[in-house]
Amino acid sequence: MADHATSPLALPLPQMPPIAGVTLGAAQAGIRYKAREDVTMMVFPAGTTVAGVFTKNKCPGAPVDWCRDALKGGKARALVVTSGNSNVFTGKAGRETCADTAKAMAELAGCKPREVFLASTGVIGERLPTAKLTAALPGLHAALVEDGWPAAARAIMTTDTFPKGAVRTAKIGDATVTIAGIAKGSGMIAPDMATMLSFLATDAKIPAPVLQKLLSKGVGPSFNCVTVDSDTSTSDTVLLFATGATKHPRVPAEGGPMLRDFTRALNDVLMDLALMVARDGEGAQKLVRIDVTGAVTARSAHRIAMSIANSPLVKTAIAGEDANWGRIVMAVGKAGEPADRDKLSVAVGGTWMAREGGVIPDYDEAPVVAHMKGREVEITVDIGLGKGRATAWTCDLTHGYIDINGSYRS
Amino acid sequence: MADHATSPLALPLPQMPPIAGVTLGAAQAGIRYKAREDVTMMVFPAGTTVAGVFTKNKCPGAPVDWCRDALKGGKARALVVTSGNSNVFTGKAGRETCADTAKAMAELAGCKPREVFLASTGVIGERLPTAKLTAALPGLHAALVEDGWPAAARAIMTTDTFPKGAVRTAKIGDATVTIAGIAKGSGMIAPDMATMLSFLATDAKIPAPVLQKLLSKGVGPSFNCVTVDSDTSTSDTVLLFATGATKHPRVPAEGGPMLRDFTRALNDVLMDLALMVARDGEGAQKLVRIDVTGAVTARSAHRIAMSIANSPLVKTAIAGEDANWGRIVMAVGKAGEPADRDKLSVAVGGTWMAREGGVIPDYDEAPVVAHMKGREVEITVDIGLGKGRATAWTCDLTHGYIDINGSYRS
Repeated sequence: MADHATSPLALPLPQMPPIAGVTLGAAQAGIRYKAREDVTMMVFPAGTTVAGVFTKNKCPGAPVDWCRDALKGGKARALVVTSGNSNVFTGKAGRETCADTAKAMAELAGCKPREVFLASTGVIGERLPTAKLTAALPGLHAALVEDGWPAAARAIMTTDTFPKGAVRTAKIGDATVTIAGIAKGSGMIAPDMATMLSFLATDAKIPAPVLQKLLSKGVGPSFNCVTVDSDTSTSDTVLLFATGATKHPRVPAEGGPMLRDFTRALNDVLMDLALMVARDGEGAQKLVRIDVTGAVTARSAHRIAMSIANSPLVKTAIAGEDANWGRIVMAVGKAGEPADRDKLSVAVGGTWMAREGGVIPDYDEAPVVAHMKGREVEITVDIGLGKGRATAWTCDLTHGYIDINGSYRS
Repeated sequence: MADHATSPLALPLPQMPPIAGVTLGAAQAGIRYKAREDVTMMVFPAGTTVAGVFTKNKCPGAPVDWCRDALKGGKARALVVTSGNSNVFTGKAGRETCADTAKAMAELAGCKPREVFLASTGVIGERLPTAKLTAALPGLHAALVEDGWPAAARAIMTTDTFPKGAVRTAKIGDATVTIAGIAKGSGMIAPDMATMLSFLATDAKIPAPVLQKLLSKGVGPSFNCVTVDSDTSTSDTVLLFATGATKHPRVPAEGGPMLRDFTRALNDVLMDLALMVARDGEGAQKLVRIDVTGAVTARSAHRIAMSIANSPLVKTAIAGEDANWGRIVMAVGKAGEPADRDKLSVAVGGTWMAREGGVIPDYDEAPVVAHMKGREVEITVDIGLGKGRATAWTCDLTHGYIDINGSYRS
């Protein structure tokens, strides 16, 4: 695995306080990497609820299948994450690895295997050495601590260039609860496949169906609006655990207004983490925000924004610091959504360059040129047809992407 | 505009014989380029029928709108193509350019403006200098020749690195007819937008509705199965003209078996030209053929093949000569089509590497490694669910793509 320089868009890991009820840590299992932590563990108290969202890829890894199944119970007592081997396309052996790992972990945590959640990223098509993994679990379990978040954030990395974490507090009634999350993603593994993983925990007590609803909704404008290269990993996983270790007024089965502040805090954590993934996009030199307004619906706006965010021609233009609005118009048109060339307007960095079907004569180029030289680029497209709006995030497409992904595997 | 080295995948322009009834040529109008031909003209006899297919981009250029409208008449007497300015996103001025050009050409050819077809590629959002263009038309018209195909193939190029042409003969009854075609595409314009244009002519006499049916069907497995970077130009245009200058048994209004050989020849010309576009893909070092078998339907197979062909991770792996079947599995899964991980098989260069959900233990790597070092890479994926099959073509994703598309516009 080549080492890549830290992304110029990296953010420092914030202070990560303990989350009441959660102990966690990382250890070296020697699955693939040498001399670095490659297995991460979290343990939760009885009564912890869980929510999850997973890749839409039709060929998911064995751990994704395991989690989808385990999620039906709505309860969680442990999480085991490995780095270096994704346990994808490993057939029956891969399913056995999941079952064996969950069983070993369940014995340590005193729970059912179905209360153990699993995630793996790394090379695909190679058997995960289960014995090495299970052998590392007891020692790691004995060494779990409450302030292990920074170690966990580092241990789940593959070729990420910086660890990613976010924390928010929220009020439920008069009580203060905390939500912490870590993520990895958009670095490549050795160099096999970009995978996004994110694990969040809170000390709030929230029924599993409510938690699932909040998470499913929260990933919409955050993780689902971030794209690096349009490719969808077979392992993408977001899990949210709620330990209930902090006392607060009881949350009703249907959720409701009591969770308004919690929802805001959760969405903030999800957005922070999602943007960190874009900031660590392979070869990224610039973070790109794309706002689409005036589409016929919000869904249509989202599709147009993602079409722009996934366009190699738009992304290479941004890498070249070229405010190439023509390519933006092309990307709007190829989305297949309702659009009328003669009603389109395009702005870069707040300067409108094209409006109603044509370039704006004598628009001021100086602020556009200055904006394109910065680390954060903002594109705004008004479709001029309705009130639908959406925002998407991506990074530029650079030689770094080719270097990382085009190198020999061995 | 930067000059780029000729693609290592380039093919020589074949001998391009005259097509009875067609005269053509190219001239320098000085629209954008200096000291090179940038306007191409073809003139056809009365009775010439025409068929066309166009970009599905929702923000097409003014010439595409013009052609779509003109095509309703089914008759053609002239074609005018410009290079250097695409007349896209030029509003009312762009529509006037089309009308003025068609009017000027119609006067020279002695026909109606609606019998004149237009195409342009190049920078977008800049007015096409109509006066320069129309001033060049009379001189060009006076100099048209029957053997102008090579000159036309060169004049329609933008940053293509080689001219593209193909010719086939076919029998209709006992008569021999010829189909000639030229294309440009996948080079970038200055560097604004990749656009694919192709113009074909035959001396056969074929009713417009039949011609349209053959062309619409013929682009399916050819131009519509080639992708360089998933971006869809606002100007893509394929036009097929049939002069009827060669006598042969009358083709009935519904076409039919009489056209079997003609259809084969047309499909061959379309496939030749489409593959030349892939061979001239920006930065291309390798031509990639993707065969998908065993999908639930042919349509599903096509979508899966295009998902693989458009995956940046697959394309960078090929650039790195890495037979990374894991990324291929990922691209199958992200297509959203029916697929079962545990029934998938993947071969590279004819060597099966993965089968039924897992890597084939001890498959012979040597022929795979040797295949990946070649100029033409073949990927085969068997979905294992049905009988649907499709083939797609692309090129690898290299530093050359970033160089060409990420450079400053001015």
